[in-house]
Amino acid sequence: MIIPHDSVEIVEVGPRDGLQNLREFVKTEHKVALIQRLAKSGLREIQIGSFVNPLAVPQFRDIKKIADQVVGNLPGITFTALVPNLKGAEEAFSCGIRKIAFVLSVSRGHSLSNVQKTPEESLEELKDISRLRSDHPDAVITVDLATAFGCCFQLKVTLEDVLHYVGEVHELGFDRVTLCDTVGFGNPRQVYDFTTACIESFPEVVFRCHLHNTRGLGLAGTLAAYMAGIRSFDSSIGGLGGCPFAPGATGNIATEDEVFMFNEMGVKTGVDVESLIDTTRYLSEIMPGINLESALLRAGLPAARPYNGG
Amino acid sequence: MIIPHDSVEIVEVGPRDGLQNLREFVKTEHKVALIQRLAKSGLREIQIGSFVNPLAVPQFRDIKKIADQVVGNLPGITFTALVPNLKGAEEAFSCGIRKIAFVLSVSRGHSLSNVQKTPEESLEELKDISRLRSDHPDAVITVDLATAFGCCFQLKVTLEDVLHYVGEVHELGFDRVTLCDTVGFGNPRQVYDFTTACIESFPEVVFRCHLHNTRGLGLAGTLAAYMAGIRSFDSSIGGLGGCPFAPGATGNIATEDEVFMFNEMGVKTGVDVESLIDTTRYLSEIMPGINLESALLRAGLPAARPYNGG
Repeated sequence: MIIPHDSVEIVEVGPRDGLQNLREFVKTEHKVALIQRLAKSGLREIQIGSFVNPLAVPQFRDIKKIADQVVGNLPGITFTALVPNLKGAEEAFSCGIRKIAFVLSVSRGHSLSNVQKTPEESLEELKDISRLRSDHPDAVITVDLATAFGCCFQLKVTLEDVLHYVGEVHELGFDRVTLCDTVGFGNPRQVYDFTTACIESFPEVVFRCHLHNTRGLGLAGTLAAYMAGIRSFDSSIGGLGGCPFAPGATGNIATEDEVFMFNEMGVKTGVDVESLIDTTRYLSEIMPGINLESALLRAGLPAARPYNGG
Repeated sequence: MIIPHDSVEIVEVGPRDGLQNLREFVKTEHKVALIQRLAKSGLREIQIGSFVNPLAVPQFRDIKKIADQVVGNLPGITFTALVPNLKGAEEAFSCGIRKIAFVLSVSRGHSLSNVQKTPEESLEELKDISRLRSDHPDAVITVDLATAFGCCFQLKVTLEDVLHYVGEVHELGFDRVTLCDTVGFGNPRQVYDFTTACIESFPEVVFRCHLHNTRGLGLAGTLAAYMAGIRSFDSSIGGLGGCPFAPGATGNIATEDEVFMFNEMGVKTGVDVESLIDTTRYLSEIMPGINLESALLRAGLPAARPYNGG
């Protein structure tokens, strides 16, 4: 059986990745309601925002308020946040968040544009963050390896680049890495080959994927990653969050589409697709006029029972 | 290597499947120009329409004129047509078409709705068509097994149903079968399992796939079929042709997206993506206001060179 029967973890990043590029500020009460709805659909991990300079990303100027209202109030759900630096990590921990994702761009150009640091400087920042672990022994720190499958600023990101930075991250004592197709350049063969090589080269590291659907290959890449052994994926409700470098393009994979694919194949997600579709409709209410790239929102669920090989 | 390096054949069915449900009649000259543009992009097989009762499908009332203008005028291109019955097959052959696709629905409900015949009655029709072969020894007849992965009219289409009809078709001496996900109910595991079982059960038959993207799984299913050994796929320029049972939903896989996926993976198609994108733009000109579901039309090609494992 080339497509295994197993279970996967779907991590919802819509409240962070989906909202970060929106010009319009989404009210705190709507963000909180969105997170609560997502939690009810069976998702067990939700990224609620970024601890960043509010001047750089005004959308998350209310991140502490959001954390205050959700962290600890929804038992069984892990709330995570993205942090670009030590300050963000400290703030996240002080807000009760026990799992953070630190961004490290493989591409120097993207790194400079995104966090005004070279990848090497980001590694230094990560070293500083690693010192926080003694004060927060229960905290989990993952590294989001951005532009791992290509970059607008760099002609080609090679597998060697990716393995190099995974090695550096691992050297600092981190064992959780998310391979991110930040700008949607990856193709299924690349996703399969890169994830396979990472898993084989670093058996102590747990790899996961954050893929985009910019050019329609999101779910094919997800299938390829799953076959390579990846069991945890980021996605964004309603496909929220376009790539800022490809105007009008789909960005993130819609959570409902990703969950649908796995559920139909008999791969357990624990997530209810109908509940996600309802939440996607809720997005249209709180963000009127927003363009949602969700195949299921358009087509609805199929009338027939799926074949899942079970 | 789980994803082989090989080549695939992309068959363009947009002029037939993409247009058949459009209410507005597309002018003959536009259809011909569309076919000519498609031929220039490197596609080697194009389905130009259906030989059906013009009262049932008025869009193809000009099919003989189209055939007259393209068949024989574009060397190296195989022009095919869909036929629902003996009369259609005779007309297609008399127009110089040397390759036809006969539709046989696995689902009784779909069959009755589509061609007002049970699958068994369609098999009788196919038996009649098989008698034409002695007069047309150079003609190729393929069978499109519709609703092979599910149907709106039937709770479940089983693998046994599919194998049964492949067996019947093979019994009549036909050795080319296209497994069609007519309403977009298939999932990648199902596509993998069904195609694998068909190939293993009927090694003398050449199987190909016609998948839909109704619920976003089109390219993931294509990848699964490719890994199962399928090397020929239908698709439709611009994603033209929605499923009439899911209003507003994406129907066919866009040819440019399918070609893009294979090209990026280093799987040879011989087709130029940029030329296809130009043709998709041409669709918008000749059919103003039409909703095209093409990821590449929105996002454009990536700036970076792809990783293709080569």
